[in-house]
Amino acid sequence: MLNRVRSAVAHLVSSGGAPPPRPKSPDLPNAASAPPAAAPEAPRSPPAKAGSGSATPAKAVEARASFSRPTFLQLSPGGLRRADDHAGRAVQSPPDTGRRLPWSTGYAEVINAGKSRHNEDQACCEVVYVEGRRSVTGVPREPSRGQGLCFYYWGLFDGHAGGGAAEMASRLLHRHIREQLKDLVEILQDPSPPPLCLPTTPGTPDSSDPSHLLGPQSCWSSQKEVSHESLVVGAVENAFQLMDEQMARERRGHQVEGGCCALVVIYLLGKVAIIVRNGEIIPMSREFTPETERQRLQLLGFLKPELLGSEFTHLEFPRRVLPKELGQRMLYRDQNMTGWAYKKIELEDLRFPLVCGEGKKARVMATIGVTRGLGDHSLKVCSSTLPIKPFLSCFPEVRVYDLTQYEHCPDDVLVLGTDGLWDVTTDCEVAATVDRVLSAYEPNDHSRYTALAQALVLGARGTPRDRGWRLPNNKLGSGDDISVFVIPLGGPGSYS
Amino acid sequence: MLNRVRSAVAHLVSSGGAPPPRPKSPDLPNAASAPPAAAPEAPRSPPAKAGSGSATPAKAVEARASFSRPTFLQLSPGGLRRADDHAGRAVQSPPDTGRRLPWSTGYAEVINAGKSRHNEDQACCEVVYVEGRRSVTGVPREPSRGQGLCFYYWGLFDGHAGGGAAEMASRLLHRHIREQLKDLVEILQDPSPPPLCLPTTPGTPDSSDPSHLLGPQSCWSSQKEVSHESLVVGAVENAFQLMDEQMARERRGHQVEGGCCALVVIYLLGKVAIIVRNGEIIPMSREFTPETERQRLQLLGFLKPELLGSEFTHLEFPRRVLPKELGQRMLYRDQNMTGWAYKKIELEDLRFPLVCGEGKKARVMATIGVTRGLGDHSLKVCSSTLPIKPFLSCFPEVRVYDLTQYEHCPDDVLVLGTDGLWDVTTDCEVAATVDRVLSAYEPNDHSRYTALAQALVLGARGTPRDRGWRLPNNKLGSGDDISVFVIPLGGPGSYS
Repeated sequence: MLNRVRSAVAHLVSSGGAPPPRPKSPDLPNAASAPPAAAPEAPRSPPAKAGSGSATPAKAVEARASFSRPTFLQLSPGGLRRADDHAGRAVQSPPDTGRRLPWSTGYAEVINAGKSRHNEDQACCEVVYVEGRRSVTGVPREPSRGQGLCFYYWGLFDGHAGGGAAEMASRLLHRHIREQLKDLVEILQDPSPPPLCLPTTPGTPDSSDPSHLLGPQSCWSSQKEVSHESLVVGAVENAFQLMDEQMARERRGHQVEGGCCALVVIYLLGKVAIIVRNGEIIPMSREFTPETERQRLQLLGFLKPELLGSEFTHLEFPRRVLPKELGQRMLYRDQNMTGWAYKKIELEDLRFPLVCGEGKKARVMATIGVTRGLGDHSLKVCSSTLPIKPFLSCFPEVRVYDLTQYEHCPDDVLVLGTDGLWDVTTDCEVAATVDRVLSAYEPNDHSRYTALAQALVLGARGTPRDRGWRLPNNKLGSGDDISVFVIPLGGPGSYS
Repeated sequence: MLNRVRSAVAHLVSSGGAPPPRPKSPDLPNAASAPPAAAPEAPRSPPAKAGSGSATPAKAVEARASFSRPTFLQLSPGGLRRADDHAGRAVQSPPDTGRRLPWSTGYAEVINAGKSRHNEDQACCEVVYVEGRRSVTGVPREPSRGQGLCFYYWGLFDGHAGGGAAEMASRLLHRHIREQLKDLVEILQDPSPPPLCLPTTPGTPDSSDPSHLLGPQSCWSSQKEVSHESLVVGAVENAFQLMDEQMARERRGHQVEGGCCALVVIYLLGKVAIIVRNGEIIPMSREFTPETERQRLQLLGFLKPELLGSEFTHLEFPRRVLPKELGQRMLYRDQNMTGWAYKKIELEDLRFPLVCGEGKKARVMATIGVTRGLGDHSLKVCSSTLPIKPFLSCFPEVRVYDLTQYEHCPDDVLVLGTDGLWDVTTDCEVAATVDRVLSAYEPNDHSRYTALAQALVLGARGTPRDRGWRLPNNKLGSGDDISVFVIPLGGPGSYS
């Protein structure tokens, strides 16, 4: 299991084009008309499904062997076996001879040292074309505005408790994003502010006027301006939710075991995420853990105590409360507090805390160390029927970096890595490796980014020595799956 | 009404002393033994009351005339009348001849231009001595550790819908803080880590051992270290909650109308809040508005739909949805989204949104423009019985600035102001006024901070011209109550 979600999604929006309402989606069958699955136990938002032109495929996942690697690695059956070998832990990259990844992106990965049967990381790198729907705004589109949109997409998925969720997300998440963007093709290409309201599908009669339902009027005569950018953010947020719902629906028929954390970068009409720029380090994502999300978790447990059963308390204590301490006063924190205070121990404080442990050992309901991700619909508290999913969020944190606001050089890169990298490597060490490796290659040598990705993976894996994988400083390397994308932000890729 | 809460609380913690369990509090009668009031509708945390040595006074508020000004202004009856005159709007400061405020703090205020009958701002500036309780840790204290603690305290309270809540908070909040700190006197003066658990009051027998109540064990063998600082933060958080509960209990018998926002600074054993340091501006607080707290409000409405009645929806729309738009698709955001997306309008989307409007006009339930503060226990939606209090939080955001980490000069000041100041003055303009006024006085002239507070108030009020109070640039000045503290962080005050 991994203890981090690093979720950075970024994009850029500009102007000019046109599309149609609710066509059939080629890769996400049963679009439009399929009824959205009811969220069973999780308190998530139904309206997001209802209205967002949801693509809700029912048969997109073929049953398949649980072990696969990204197609861009072009692994032969023999290569696949070598990639699956915990003893050798050979670093895998796309072949030199093959088609380069978009933007000359570098990629490398290595399997774990035995913590799970297969590599539970997955990766995806695609250029995705979004064809617009027929005029959503109701205005017949001009022929010149007929083009769709392209976005570049990189995704890392770090699975836990099985590889199924990561595998499914790596195949389908970008398609959900495409589906959500279809309605926006025309709108994003039009420099005028987005329409606040779209007409009904032509032919649908207006409903009668229920004006008696109007609430208090008063302060609200004006209307908000909604930016193009926030429409793309909303599309990405809904795509994550729909991906998660698809996993819920299909988990029984198919092998969608466990869950996964996702780290995704989207380049659309101009913005993107970054980490090393002129030696400067810009973190574009943060971890979602039981510690960083403590107050969100506690608030939910407080407002919906039925989610805690009779086994857990929403209060946090600095250590396990012992029955003999009943009546004494112990430090605690509730959902409103950032500080600590003493409270008299009562009977229900002896329940296990919703959030416990520190750092890598922090857990929700003594079970899971990540608090955002896709999947985990069947996850229960150990030896209990209490579901954990209601406390997990499938929503990403979206950050936008405007690529056009800065002149990038060939050494400016965005590094995406799974926990296997970040557990043993600091941002500064990554920056130093970036500098060391890239300066050893000509700026126009396309292979430099792959070499960098390999160096990062090797640096986190270490070499076998003294009964373990060890780093040069003799500390233990990462025994986890390690996957790294290196995305160049300036040359040599031309992004047109 | 004001649209901001600026809540910065700061303090500093070091080492050495000793106190007793639950004595009677002189200024907060009925301490210890008084049962905490049940929070009626608001989903707030009961345990905070139960265990934190709560001071829950029942008769602390005498009925009094609703108009009063801070005692440190030493206003005569005639002065009080002049301070209450909307036409003249004379700036009030403590008299030169009186006792200086701690640290030579400057203060100035002016009444509003007619928006409410009286000045609804209140202020408090005190040095508060905290006597410890008899040994809370159970260990008999050494005689050398017998001293209590002192803290310096500055508070601004910006009332709305009446002055009662602000008046009450200005008289009592620091006493609640003192009460919460009593248990900590011994602990804060001891350099070793705080005890995680305090023994029962001597004489109380241990309860029997209910070990069958133990939940899942597993990951949680260690214990957290809790810092002294986080204990002070917890004490302040609980003090705010207890102040709010006291207002709830006493609102009927006494004149506690409306609510108030609070901005508080605490200096305790070494840390404090700041804004201008060597020309550099460091904001120490932020606003809590329906816009900045949208997702918190929407989540509560989503999880507890009964709080919305049949009148409101937790979804946000960029403008009022019209009945004739039923079936069309409108932009919306839910509690999980930072971006916007389109959804098909359904019948319940015609309800009024929980959060609506923009900027100064943003409102919760079409009623109130602030989302954190004290009081407002009787506030209902216009022409409805729906209470708004459940959506308001009484919890402060606490930031800590360590005064000892920086050598401060006499021109380094912390500026606290109510909305009357910040609505018409930017941080940069405040910094320019700080520079201009302080440089006109000798560094050791104690009156310079009062002169600065007066300049800031005058600069925000403007002068009467063209049927209004106008600034030099002819824009309208603030018609609100304006109150300003200027706290010097370096000389001439010696803080010992």
